[in-house]
Amino acid sequence: MPDEFFMRLAIAEAWKYQGLTYPNPAVGAVVVNSEGAILSVAAHQKAAEAHAEVLALKDAYKVLSGDTTIDALHQSWDIHDFLHVNAGELFEECSLYTTLEPCNHEGKTPSCADLLETLSLRRIIIGSLDTHAIAAGGARRLRHVSTGVCHDACEALLLPFKAWQKQQFIFFKWAQRLDGTIDGGTISAIESRRNVHAMRSVCDLLVIGGNTVREDRPTLDSRLVNGSAPDILIYSHNSVFDNTIPLFHVPRRQVFIDDHWDRLKGYRNIMIEGGPVLLEATQSMVDCYVSFIAPSSGGSIPFTTQRADFEWLHVAPSGCDLKMWLRKKDE
Amino acid sequence: MPDEFFMRLAIAEAWKYQGLTYPNPAVGAVVVNSEGAILSVAAHQKAAEAHAEVLALKDAYKVLSGDTTIDALHQSWDIHDFLHVNAGELFEECSLYTTLEPCNHEGKTPSCADLLETLSLRRIIIGSLDTHAIAAGGARRLRHVSTGVCHDACEALLLPFKAWQKQQFIFFKWAQRLDGTIDGGTISAIESRRNVHAMRSVCDLLVIGGNTVREDRPTLDSRLVNGSAPDILIYSHNSVFDNTIPLFHVPRRQVFIDDHWDRLKGYRNIMIEGGPVLLEATQSMVDCYVSFIAPSSGGSIPFTTQRADFEWLHVAPSGCDLKMWLRKKDE
Repeated sequence: MPDEFFMRLAIAEAWKYQGLTYPNPAVGAVVVNSEGAILSVAAHQKAAEAHAEVLALKDAYKVLSGDTTIDALHQSWDIHDFLHVNAGELFEECSLYTTLEPCNHEGKTPSCADLLETLSLRRIIIGSLDTHAIAAGGARRLRHVSTGVCHDACEALLLPFKAWQKQQFIFFKWAQRLDGTIDGGTISAIESRRNVHAMRSVCDLLVIGGNTVREDRPTLDSRLVNGSAPDILIYSHNSVFDNTIPLFHVPRRQVFIDDHWDRLKGYRNIMIEGGPVLLEATQSMVDCYVSFIAPSSGGSIPFTTQRADFEWLHVAPSGCDLKMWLRKKDE
Repeated sequence: MPDEFFMRLAIAEAWKYQGLTYPNPAVGAVVVNSEGAILSVAAHQKAAEAHAEVLALKDAYKVLSGDTTIDALHQSWDIHDFLHVNAGELFEECSLYTTLEPCNHEGKTPSCADLLETLSLRRIIIGSLDTHAIAAGGARRLRHVSTGVCHDACEALLLPFKAWQKQQFIFFKWAQRLDGTIDGGTISAIESRRNVHAMRSVCDLLVIGGNTVREDRPTLDSRLVNGSAPDILIYSHNSVFDNTIPLFHVPRRQVFIDDHWDRLKGYRNIMIEGGPVLLEATQSMVDCYVSFIAPSSGGSIPFTTQRADFEWLHVAPSGCDLKMWLRKKDE
């Protein structure tokens, strides 16, 4: 199979954790043996946890060696140390595909480039080169490197990360039915709602419209994943709210009510959950959209009838829904 | 990788030709070597052409032997004969995944079970067993067979085929934007429109609503793929139409105008292209839906606001659109 086939597997795996890896990039990796058989597919899932390459090497080690003692190791440093000591020449005929250049620095986790250098794989195939000032340069340390495979798709994975590096990433989430409607009770599958809670837990500010707060009386926490609740900015020209609305009573959270966007300055990973009015009010600031589409029809209020052209960055199942990451097309 | 991984590749390849294989089923096949490396991925594309298994074996033969003379062969009988003579023990360590039991009879093409018996593969993994009176029984001839892998997904692929076997298959096609709107000019990408023309070319009756004919003045042929034009049933209570509408002037086609469905009896592969009114009028007859979703918004007329619950049978890109096959959920 061509390099693109394996890289696309790595890309699809990485998208499963998009929105959850902040402040790290979403990265996927695949290890393949000399025959082209897939030994492992893995993705970085959460900051401070192991990088995609390390998780892929961990799983591939088990397949190659039959030794499952590595299963007990979860900390990145432990897996690194184990592979340094035990892998020997096991990976010398293998290739590793990674959507992003392996990191070249020790931070919360050890350097992937260092580990890959020790394991001396047959080939390392990289989608995007890392432009991060500290982590970059991994590819220069390694031999038998190919770069630029599925480059555009790997760059799309990095949109949030590149926005964080510059300043902040703002994404707008909505849920709708296939027919575009949004009224009439719960729309999304439980898997989709859990994913939204997981993204809330990782974002540092959640923006919501005043009318939505008044009508839905939401809590806007992360209870479905036992996560932490982000700060809330209610965007409203009218600052009077019923104080018994649950979102005001979530511990360890600040709630702001503003009719301007100055408050965004202090935050880096910002999720907007809103309806058509907020969509229109925020469109010049939004980097990305994520939409959960339920396979149903029958509401009466459409999400939007605003003229827009998007491109799909990634589409995947989410329970019985579809989850899609979109970007506005340049006009 | 688990059997399900390879079977899902076969399933996805088969869906690319769903709607184009009439009267044959859409079938996909994957050949994997003893290490688990993928040697080929193929699908049946058109009746009277080679079956999925044969195309997958053809491509795998090239990888295993390095002999490209088989490239020149396109007829199923020629590929069969070539492999019977030349494959020897080449496939004995390979596994073949097929979404449908290999056929056990000689029709327009030779028996796949016969070829697979000769090649004596290490394993044959089958999604759905064939219930066709004549073609079934292939699995019983073969050794080292596993059945039922991704069974439900393989059965979903067979919905049209099983409907043809019983009587007829009726599917409803529509195109919309992500926001559910359908007005305001061309919606779908050229790849989607070509695919619609290819499906028209294979169906034997195309049903359309009278209002659509009056408003859009369509041709409803298959010019984008140089295909043949199906017969047309205009469903209308008013039988008066402007005779200069292009669809009336396509050669070798019959056009009927009816306010009932008696005409459907003589046809087996029926496509309906319509709007919300026709959707409602035909819902009790329709087996499947296929929808092309453009990544845009901004029309003013929604496709439907009728209450319905669907399940996605398959979703895949179609140019910059998404193409989705859906089925109504049992109420």
